[in-house]
Amino acid sequence: MRKADYPAQTEQWDVFEYRTEGISSGNPFVERTIRGSFRSGTREVKVDGFYDGDGVYLVRYMPDEPGEVSFTIDGNYGGDRTEPFMGSFSVTKATEGNHGPVRVQDRTRLFYTDGTPHLSFGTTCYAWVHQSTALQEETLASLTASPFNKIRFCIFPKHYDYNYNEPLTYPFEGTPGDTGGLDRSSMQRFTEEKPGNHWDFTRFRPEHFRRFDERIRDLMKHGIEADLILFHPYDRWGFDGMGAEADDRYVRYCVARFAAFRNVWWSLANEYDFIRSKKAEDWERIGRLVTACDPYGHLCSVHNGPTFYDFSRDWVTHCSCQGTSRYRSTEQSAEFLDRYQKPVVWDEVLYEGNIDLGWGNITGEEMTRRFWEGMLRGAHVGHGETLLDAVDEQVDDAILWWSHGGRLKGESPERIAFLKKILKDVPGGPLLNQDPACWDAVCGIPANAPAGSYYLYYFSFLRPLFRDFHFPEDTVYRVDLIDTWNMTVTPLGEMSGNFRVVTGGKPWMALRLTRV
Amino acid sequence: MRKADYPAQTEQWDVFEYRTEGISSGNPFVERTIRGSFRSGTREVKVDGFYDGDGVYLVRYMPDEPGEVSFTIDGNYGGDRTEPFMGSFSVTKATEGNHGPVRVQDRTRLFYTDGTPHLSFGTTCYAWVHQSTALQEETLASLTASPFNKIRFCIFPKHYDYNYNEPLTYPFEGTPGDTGGLDRSSMQRFTEEKPGNHWDFTRFRPEHFRRFDERIRDLMKHGIEADLILFHPYDRWGFDGMGAEADDRYVRYCVARFAAFRNVWWSLANEYDFIRSKKAEDWERIGRLVTACDPYGHLCSVHNGPTFYDFSRDWVTHCSCQGTSRYRSTEQSAEFLDRYQKPVVWDEVLYEGNIDLGWGNITGEEMTRRFWEGMLRGAHVGHGETLLDAVDEQVDDAILWWSHGGRLKGESPERIAFLKKILKDVPGGPLLNQDPACWDAVCGIPANAPAGSYYLYYFSFLRPLFRDFHFPEDTVYRVDLIDTWNMTVTPLGEMSGNFRVVTGGKPWMALRLTRV
Repeated sequence: MRKADYPAQTEQWDVFEYRTEGISSGNPFVERTIRGSFRSGTREVKVDGFYDGDGVYLVRYMPDEPGEVSFTIDGNYGGDRTEPFMGSFSVTKATEGNHGPVRVQDRTRLFYTDGTPHLSFGTTCYAWVHQSTALQEETLASLTASPFNKIRFCIFPKHYDYNYNEPLTYPFEGTPGDTGGLDRSSMQRFTEEKPGNHWDFTRFRPEHFRRFDERIRDLMKHGIEADLILFHPYDRWGFDGMGAEADDRYVRYCVARFAAFRNVWWSLANEYDFIRSKKAEDWERIGRLVTACDPYGHLCSVHNGPTFYDFSRDWVTHCSCQGTSRYRSTEQSAEFLDRYQKPVVWDEVLYEGNIDLGWGNITGEEMTRRFWEGMLRGAHVGHGETLLDAVDEQVDDAILWWSHGGRLKGESPERIAFLKKILKDVPGGPLLNQDPACWDAVCGIPANAPAGSYYLYYFSFLRPLFRDFHFPEDTVYRVDLIDTWNMTVTPLGEMSGNFRVVTGGKPWMALRLTRV
Repeated sequence: MRKADYPAQTEQWDVFEYRTEGISSGNPFVERTIRGSFRSGTREVKVDGFYDGDGVYLVRYMPDEPGEVSFTIDGNYGGDRTEPFMGSFSVTKATEGNHGPVRVQDRTRLFYTDGTPHLSFGTTCYAWVHQSTALQEETLASLTASPFNKIRFCIFPKHYDYNYNEPLTYPFEGTPGDTGGLDRSSMQRFTEEKPGNHWDFTRFRPEHFRRFDERIRDLMKHGIEADLILFHPYDRWGFDGMGAEADDRYVRYCVARFAAFRNVWWSLANEYDFIRSKKAEDWERIGRLVTACDPYGHLCSVHNGPTFYDFSRDWVTHCSCQGTSRYRSTEQSAEFLDRYQKPVVWDEVLYEGNIDLGWGNITGEEMTRRFWEGMLRGAHVGHGETLLDAVDEQVDDAILWWSHGGRLKGESPERIAFLKKILKDVPGGPLLNQDPACWDAVCGIPANAPAGSYYLYYFSFLRPLFRDFHFPEDTVYRVDLIDTWNMTVTPLGEMSGNFRVVTGGKPWMALRLTRV
């Protein structure tokens, strides 16, 4: 019998991993199979395992309730006559900080599986797992000190302005083209042709994917969701145009490998509409494949460039939006919540930065505004940063959070943390709707608190000197003036009936009315 | 024969006025007529005159070319057997500063009749002609010192927050309702009913209209267009719901009275869609009536509240736009120019101010931005201001430029003057198109200059640290860095081929490339 190993005990929503030796000759990635079948009570969940190189096969499973789980492992990983392996393990209750995967509930809202409301404060470091280990560690440290509880990143390496370096590892066996002397004009050069690459798309490089295992686990430990981007257009290696067979093999491998991590979200693509080699039917096929292979129903969407994906597709769990104009983004949240009846997650609202490219140079004020606008309308907002220290000869090698990770330098993260705290204090959970009666400001109201019990007005770039309110005479509110930029909350006392609040005439102010 | 008077000589595009005594008994406004027929060369123009009270009748005519004009005056103004009066006068060539009326040319552009390009830098003081004479004089002084070359204002008085005072005069004989103790809740009170008013809509009060004559003439002298608003919804006197017969009589009176002033534009309404008593067919009837009565074809449009008027109607000369969201305005200029194929004039882009109402508290930066965004896309932009000095017990009596006129206090007018100067320096006239090749900034290009000869990039609220340009090697540009807020132009020298411009990483910057 083959040497196998697995733990006797796993925490609820943690990764149970069955490890076994198997055949390493030939091409195990395409010639060998390993599957697990997990039973708890009357339920049975079937999952694919995967080959991890060096004669090792893994089957991962995420148990979702405390108790005993019995399982069977089969497949031809040990040869055509491999005997099924049967075993069992016990599942302990989730410990503090482990709330299970994020799911859609109440149509447009996000909750952890244990019922804790989830407001997604995302950020993006597309290629951070492709950078040096030291830089990855710095990114992790920055993340854990930040307000962000989700990060978007790519499994494939990235080629773009400011991104000319080779990745730490490649996802497939083979060799990249000689691309010495890359510069800003190389974007053009690689749009259609990818010269000199030689890849065997049937042979994964497990070391590449093992690093993602580690990083997803690191994020999980810190309560950060991993929004995994399966495909993207910014490529000089040809991974954006491998053909349907290789795409599907890769997708199956990713799902088998990563789905047992509770913090995984599937993002089929960054800017799907810039990937010329894939058509609508390809995305549909890939989306259905992810859904079919993932037994846990992780969140799954497709992020757009100029044109929204059809978020109404049944396998799309939420709208992963990029604003389609420099001028508009999260102000449109209520419109899209209404149109799609799914959670709206703004995964790009431009970048706090100062780079030359037009999507990468909004101010900290504008980034903070976009968070308030979206969050108060019941959407979720993601941050990004592209801040250069200087324009010099090394500018193309700059470390930018947006892609490389590293250190957060912008002014918005601190303000986003302040907003997160304000929203955490909302009675009845942090989930907010836009008050439809408020025509000239943003006014968030709790979804599940009594009507009229709480209002959070946000005046955005507007700067009224005062505001009048008209309530029934016996209605008393505790009024707080919030400076969203300077991060102060000033109590103005209790007010009732018709009252006037002096708001000061500066931009970025908010008012909080809590019924006493 | 009745005593009559008229000048022997009038300047081209100036007002020729024939004045005669006539019958004052009965109701001359409805029972009497006076018409003029003016012949120069083979052309004949017929105009209606009007009764000016006290037994005086006027016929006004705007000659449009130098030479001799002969004319006939007839009608029953002197009794049923009044003899036609025949006379003539000579027309002298327009003197400096007199360019004739503004007209549409090249489909989407504005020119004075003498061929001088016109960029409309508007402002709005809705009720300034209804305020005290001293305040009107202050408004005029402010206007002539400002960059603004158009002002929107109402012939009917205004009732709204901050506008509770009675007008200097009323347009009709009669008495207003007793409206003592008006306050902010009175808006509601007057939306449907207008209690206590007693007006005779068949009898105009000429003194009311004479003040408008004077003010239009004052504006004309200073080269400022008078965008006359015929109807508006902010009313406690019932002038917004007089019925079709009275509306038409009033419109005919206004056209007979004001059309000979070359600087008149007709605005059928401010926020037509808030006037509940008038339907689409009323606006169409009024629009056709204005066009039929006005022999000079003055610019004519209808300004919207939440919903654009159908600017494609043939009697609508230009789009008189108000943005339909707090967040969007002049960025949409290219879209509307393309859709309507008519000049786009943004007559409300919110107000630089700090009042409580959500449309009245943008910053000077935002107002300035909206001008740059619109003007560089080939549209025209109008300013407005609602700046309070303080919130105190007198706040409801504040003098706000938006409605009362007075003194400009905002930060934007100076910057708008700076933009006006920049646009005046554009080679080949100040008219700009948006460069369709520029995806990530606004880039105005001259409509009638050689391709590639001039680019004006505006980075708006974005703040790139630098920008790269890619031109053929032998193409040399003089590069100027423009700070649109601090109003500086910094020459950066001549650059050619592929070059990098350090733009500094602050918002509100622009770059000007002039081919050498």
